[in-house]
Amino acid sequence: MHELNGYFRMSQTKTLKTKERILQLSLQLFNERGERSVTTNHIAAELGMSPGNLYYHFRNKNEIIKELMEQYQHQTLEMLALPDDRALDANDKVHYFQVLSSQLWAYRFLHRDVYHLVENNEDFRKMYPRFAGQVMQQGQKIYKGFVNAGLMDMTDSEIEALIINLWIVLTNWTNFLYMSGHLTDSNTLEEKWVWQALRQMVFLEGAYLRGESRQTYEGLLNSLGSSELFASLSSAKNTEVESPIQNISETR
Amino acid sequence: MHELNGYFRMSQTKTLKTKERILQLSLQLFNERGERSVTTNHIAAELGMSPGNLYYHFRNKNEIIKELMEQYQHQTLEMLALPDDRALDANDKVHYFQVLSSQLWAYRFLHRDVYHLVENNEDFRKMYPRFAGQVMQQGQKIYKGFVNAGLMDMTDSEIEALIINLWIVLTNWTNFLYMSGHLTDSNTLEEKWVWQALRQMVFLEGAYLRGESRQTYEGLLNSLGSSELFASLSSAKNTEVESPIQNISETR
Repeated sequence: MHELNGYFRMSQTKTLKTKERILQLSLQLFNERGERSVTTNHIAAELGMSPGNLYYHFRNKNEIIKELMEQYQHQTLEMLALPDDRALDANDKVHYFQVLSSQLWAYRFLHRDVYHLVENNEDFRKMYPRFAGQVMQQGQKIYKGFVNAGLMDMTDSEIEALIINLWIVLTNWTNFLYMSGHLTDSNTLEEKWVWQALRQMVFLEGAYLRGESRQTYEGLLNSLGSSELFASLSSAKNTEVESPIQNISETR
Repeated sequence: MHELNGYFRMSQTKTLKTKERILQLSLQLFNERGERSVTTNHIAAELGMSPGNLYYHFRNKNEIIKELMEQYQHQTLEMLALPDDRALDANDKVHYFQVLSSQLWAYRFLHRDVYHLVENNEDFRKMYPRFAGQVMQQGQKIYKGFVNAGLMDMTDSEIEALIINLWIVLTNWTNFLYMSGHLTDSNTLEEKWVWQALRQMVFLEGAYLRGESRQTYEGLLNSLGSSELFASLSSAKNTEVESPIQNISETR
């Protein structure tokens, strides 16, 4: 009985590990190649696994996407939690910026082609607006925390409008870079542009900062330096965007 | 000869009119039903015209889209022109806001599913980043004009960051409403949410306003009143998004 339990535990661990490996590789491939051009067969092949073995864990691609979306939701809301034993300080502000930027980059495929996902994935269609709502509610608590701590000066309406603007800018940032020709699916070298999102967030908030966070802001602006992005965007010799999808076959 | 010229002119006018009618109806259908679910056959049928007659003017749907994109570009850049005989004033600011909002609404299908258009339409893929660049350049001139007129106080970096944020918020606004369940293709009654874009723009700029434009801003905020959008977005009982496309057949 003892041995059987041990075997069962080991087998369960192996199953969990396989599931985790499938999720990790799927996330990587979706991000790098675009979700539409990656099939479950591609994923299985890259893992040196039979399609049957993959189907044992996920019946289809939408189930993988659903699970990744749940991970993303869970992690993001956890990262946006408020400290329960102290007031917010200026370092928290920088911290929230950084975790949000890295989350957006880590799961960029989810915001990349959101329209397609909503259209083709029933679960995603239900989860996405609920997730947006939860993040916005949490954002409201965070900003009220900053106002209470004397680090920002904003009315409730200004908080609401800022959160909506932040949500739109952040969730569309990589998409904006693709559309303006500053990022291609095949090219991860352009990551520098992604971090410009931080710069955009700083400017969205700047006017409302007070006290200690005001100084942090000035420091951050100096460390960010000047941006070539605008010059590149508005240059007349702006070249065309590469076709973002190399392979639009969608067999699963 | 005189009569022949007359005939020729009349025939040319008729051709122009037919072309214009096709463009207008296409724009309406693309906006209302989503570009993907509208075929050239639908357009011809709605106009009581044979498909052959339509093909005489436009070889395929992409040619219609290209022409609409050109109209949109041309009109938008014209609306963003600076007065050449006087400095900018606070009324110009309100005016630019209004024309931009109405342009975005009038051609909303272009920003609605931009990823799909870039992917499937060679012309669009070339035109879109160039158009974005031109609008941003023009925006920069406008904001520098407001700074010179003492109506705003911004550094060059702040102008650049503001324009990028404005571009992203505005071009993704209707898409954001769809994704959060506040707009459906079939439902044009929700236009009130679209005008909330104005509110978001006002908040993006508010902190930089000075002098006369400061007063205009306060007045505008009062006239806009409070918004139910944030409450609706962040409510826990947020319902699911309706499938935005009822019919994804793409026969042409």
